[in-house]
Amino acid sequence: MSAALTLAALPGIPAVRAGDDLGGLLAAGLARLGATPASGDVLAVAQKIVSKAEGRSVPLASVTPGAEAQRLADATGKDPRLVELILSESVRVVRARPNLIIVEHRLGFVMANAGIDQSNVGEEGHALLLPLDPDGSAAGLAARLGMAVVITDSFGRAWRRGTVGVAIGAAGLPALLDLRGQPDLFGRTLQVSVTGFADEVAAAAGLVMGQGAEGRPAVLVRGLAWDAPAAPASALVRVGPEDLFR
Amino acid sequence: MSAALTLAALPGIPAVRAGDDLGGLLAAGLARLGATPASGDVLAVAQKIVSKAEGRSVPLASVTPGAEAQRLADATGKDPRLVELILSESVRVVRARPNLIIVEHRLGFVMANAGIDQSNVGEEGHALLLPLDPDGSAAGLAARLGMAVVITDSFGRAWRRGTVGVAIGAAGLPALLDLRGQPDLFGRTLQVSVTGFADEVAAAAGLVMGQGAEGRPAVLVRGLAWDAPAAPASALVRVGPEDLFR
Ligand SMILES: Nc1nc2c(ncn2[C@@H]2O[C@H](COP(=O)(O)OP(=O)(O)O)[C@@H](O)[C@H]2O)c(=O)[nH]1
Ligand SMILES: Nc1nc2c(ncn2[C@@H]2O[C@H](COP(=O)(O)OP(=O)(O)O)[C@@H](O)[C@H]2O)c(=O)[nH]1
Ligand SMILES: [Mn+2]
Ligand SMILES: [Mn+2]
Ligand SMILES: [Mn+2]
Ligand SMILES: [Mn+2]
Repeated sequence: MSAALTLAALPGIPAVRAGDDLGGLLAAGLARLGATPASGDVLAVAQKIVSKAEGRSVPLASVTPGAEAQRLADATGKDPRLVELILSESVRVVRARPNLIIVEHRLGFVMANAGIDQSNVGEEGHALLLPLDPDGSAAGLAARLGMAVVITDSFGRAWRRGTVGVAIGAAGLPALLDLRGQPDLFGRTLQVSVTGFADEVAAAAGLVMGQGAEGRPAVLVRGLAWDAPAAPASALVRVGPEDLFR
Repeated sequence: MSAALTLAALPGIPAVRAGDDLGGLLAAGLARLGATPASGDVLAVAQKIVSKAEGRSVPLASVTPGAEAQRLADATGKDPRLVELILSESVRVVRARPNLIIVEHRLGFVMANAGIDQSNVGEEGHALLLPLDPDGSAAGLAARLGMAVVITDSFGRAWRRGTVGVAIGAAGLPALLDLRGQPDLFGRTLQVSVTGFADEVAAAAGLVMGQGAEGRPAVLVRGLAWDAPAAPASALVRVGPEDLFR
């Protein structure tokens, strides 16, 4: 880890549309910033523009809600077609309340609405799903750009109010950093320290991206350092008995 | 929010000891960085040095475990004296497993071991508790330094592996940013966006602090912007029926 970091939004990213060459748009944004890839660079990219470029937008008018979706829509007050999409993206409903559905997404993420939201989508009556394979999307962009990439989304949390940026895709950096065995300041060995490195990068980038009309879907983070092999964002998902809050 | 951020560790912070004038140590660190307070600055300060300065270190030899602590120590394999301290800092045990105790801290935080840990403490056989009133500590430092302050700690999460920096104390900035009512890129009104602003600041600072022998317990974050009134980190704690994962 280094003693100083900088974060800068890539200027001039347009409204992204299905089929756009996202790697090309990001490369042009990096060029506008005058940035050539250096060791310790990570590009954070908002889920929203990855999903848009990959054509993950669905017209609600095309969705026919099934019986389970209808029931859950009645219980939550949500649009039954949106609920059908949420269920189709999920393996399990974790909690449902009026105006709230928390699911386990097929990728393992426990999150509201399976990550489907309607802000910054720009097509009336459409909902935007998560990328099919965010780790794969990150790997494609990382190869294209020659730097590590984290795909970020804004997640709510258990026990704490407010969303924070988290990594739903990662390539070229260790999503999880295992520090066990390293010494502390006084030579005592760290016994439990494993950090959600890509999640901290995503949260930092969230400070620059915002959630609204900022138009800052890509943020270059410079000055990081790591000496562990790359691991994808799927490594951040707790599974099986390790997950105490199913 | 601004389009660029910088984070820099304050150089030259010594090993902090009980009774140290932490505000003075941080002011000297800021001066070494050549930084005078500017709008949008936030100083992130590690829980560990706040606790040390406030004398929150307890010799385990001084602790007599009660019956409940003894039982929980047997169930988890932890030192009964440490468990006694954990219970004395908590209102409720949320989960216990071999080698793991998750509690609701008296301040409302759901966290492992009530935030008591033994790394970077530097006194053999001592455990370090959270500050008595981290929002109060943050307010004191903010008044002294003339800038917003976030006191950070490393928390594990439900559903996701790895710790991330979170805010346990905050002053001079809104810990939570309510963006509802603002427009998205296409003029649609944001309906659910509330961000854990101080938590994102804490996570960003965590990238610079690390967890081990880095010796970087204070990080100046520059370039932030907010236009909501200040609110403490206690605003980040979900309470009552809003907490779905008790
Ligand atoms: N330039 C540009 N910015 C976008 C686009 N879509 C979203 N953004 C910006 O990306 C940032 C994050 O938006 P948000 O809706 O929270 O995305 P999410 O967290 O990935 O779901 C904000 O600054 C948005 O204004 C787009 O198509 N073009
Ligand atoms: N200079 C200095 N650094 C410290 C001290 N205590 C902890 N640190 C550093 O603060 C950072 C965070 O340490 P950590 O033990 O994870 O603190 P926590 O997250 O607040 O519990 C690391 O860079 C440590 O090396 C101290 O007394 N002096
Ligand atoms: Mn999203
Ligand atoms: Mn977002
Ligand atoms: Mn701590
Ligand atoms: Mn830490």
